[in-house]
Amino acid sequence: MGTVNLSNIPTRAPDDLDRDEAERITRQRAQRIAELHQLLVAEREYAVLIVLQGMDASGKDGAMRNVFGECSPFGLRAVPWKKPTEEEFDHDFLWRIHKQVPAKGEMVIFNRSHYEDVLVQRVHGWITEEQVSKRLASINAFEHLLAYDNQTLILKFYLHISKEQQREELMERLEEPDKFYKHNDGDWKEREHWDAYRAAYEDAISRSEIPWHIVGVDQRWYRDYIMTEIIVDALEKLNMQWPKLVTNFKDKK
Amino acid sequence: MGTVNLSNIPTRAPDDLDRDEAERITRQRAQRIAELHQLLVAEREYAVLIVLQGMDASGKDGAMRNVFGECSPFGLRAVPWKKPTEEEFDHDFLWRIHKQVPAKGEMVIFNRSHYEDVLVQRVHGWITEEQVSKRLASINAFEHLLAYDNQTLILKFYLHISKEQQREELMERLEEPDKFYKHNDGDWKEREHWDAYRAAYEDAISRSEIPWHIVGVDQRWYRDYIMTEIIVDALEKLNMQWPKLVTNFKDKK
Repeated sequence: MGTVNLSNIPTRAPDDLDRDEAERITRQRAQRIAELHQLLVAEREYAVLIVLQGMDASGKDGAMRNVFGECSPFGLRAVPWKKPTEEEFDHDFLWRIHKQVPAKGEMVIFNRSHYEDVLVQRVHGWITEEQVSKRLASINAFEHLLAYDNQTLILKFYLHISKEQQREELMERLEEPDKFYKHNDGDWKEREHWDAYRAAYEDAISRSEIPWHIVGVDQRWYRDYIMTEIIVDALEKLNMQWPKLVTNFKDKK
Repeated sequence: MGTVNLSNIPTRAPDDLDRDEAERITRQRAQRIAELHQLLVAEREYAVLIVLQGMDASGKDGAMRNVFGECSPFGLRAVPWKKPTEEEFDHDFLWRIHKQVPAKGEMVIFNRSHYEDVLVQRVHGWITEEQVSKRLASINAFEHLLAYDNQTLILKFYLHISKEQQREELMERLEEPDKFYKHNDGDWKEREHWDAYRAAYEDAISRSEIPWHIVGVDQRWYRDYIMTEIIVDALEKLNMQWPKLVTNFKDKK
């Protein structure tokens, strides 16, 4: 999608956006997403894949809660991607991903995704640059397949957090009892590779054929405001229709 | 792999090949395949995918029995591909295929495969020519992924039967009690599309990046002779080794 320089993209809301007004609109849109999701399930013509990527503490969990929280659980599935199992490591990196893609009539949210395989593995030098290039090409071919052969709408979000804001978020996990469960010493270790992760993200986003949405997330209310806007717009564009009645029922007494 | 014209490729053994001698060699090679398969399982560095395609009654089942019959069932899996289920139809054509590809240390035999989706669907006009081209590109990208990202050796066989021989084989299914279970009226129906299938096969084989092996199968003993030769050669080339002993065991009393 052309070369992306994340440093040039703000992580915060524009000054003239009113927070209360934005939150009001976000609630409406979340409701609209739930309605469109019902239509998706009923029509069963399209599949929807939402990809959430971002640095640690960039607010992926909160985004799921606030953006999709109004949707029915039927036809909705959240898939959190962790370190591969031994069985998964014995396959190509897209094997476990492909199994979990949405069927027609389904919306699936990937919390992290196949992009981790060109991020964490690259930052730590576990794969060669040649392997990275092959994987980025495979990702494009894979996403293309989902799109043309199963009518899959793919919406990819990079949750764009500043380094300072990440520090604040990680600190809260050490200080607030209802966030202790999210704390992981390893996140502070990964933070030391901030610049390498940023470079890997910029490259992955730049070389991606299906474009990414880069969303400033330093204020969580702004993240939800933008994400709901993008998702409502994209779902509206599908122009989904309630299926026509099919019946042989004749008894009208 | 360059344009293939099946009419120019014989379906029978060369006249100077002695059948008894060929069968003796085939038995030795089938034994060697079993040994190499043990090494594959033990070393767990490579995956092996065998694809069997061919017209109805071209001898796919028999090939499995005679070529892989000496192998241990552990680390070996035969996957017969039938008409997709409703759940499978709600996904892209490679979704169900990807789930079944071999892990490292495993040999998987596809009886029919992802190629059916550019054969039967094309012959019957269920997909457009544009869709066929996209699918052939996706197949190449998919096989490439298996090869580079999971060290998968892919051996694809087109079992090349003559139209006359197919008639004989199908007739046997109507006449011999131990073949009744294979009979299907639909096979005679598909036979009417012989030329269209041949053209679709030639095109799929020609546009495939990983080359196909075209094996004359009018004499089943010749099919086994050639297939075992190709498979032994390919497995030998992997140069697999028994893993070294890894131990902290010190007690030698």
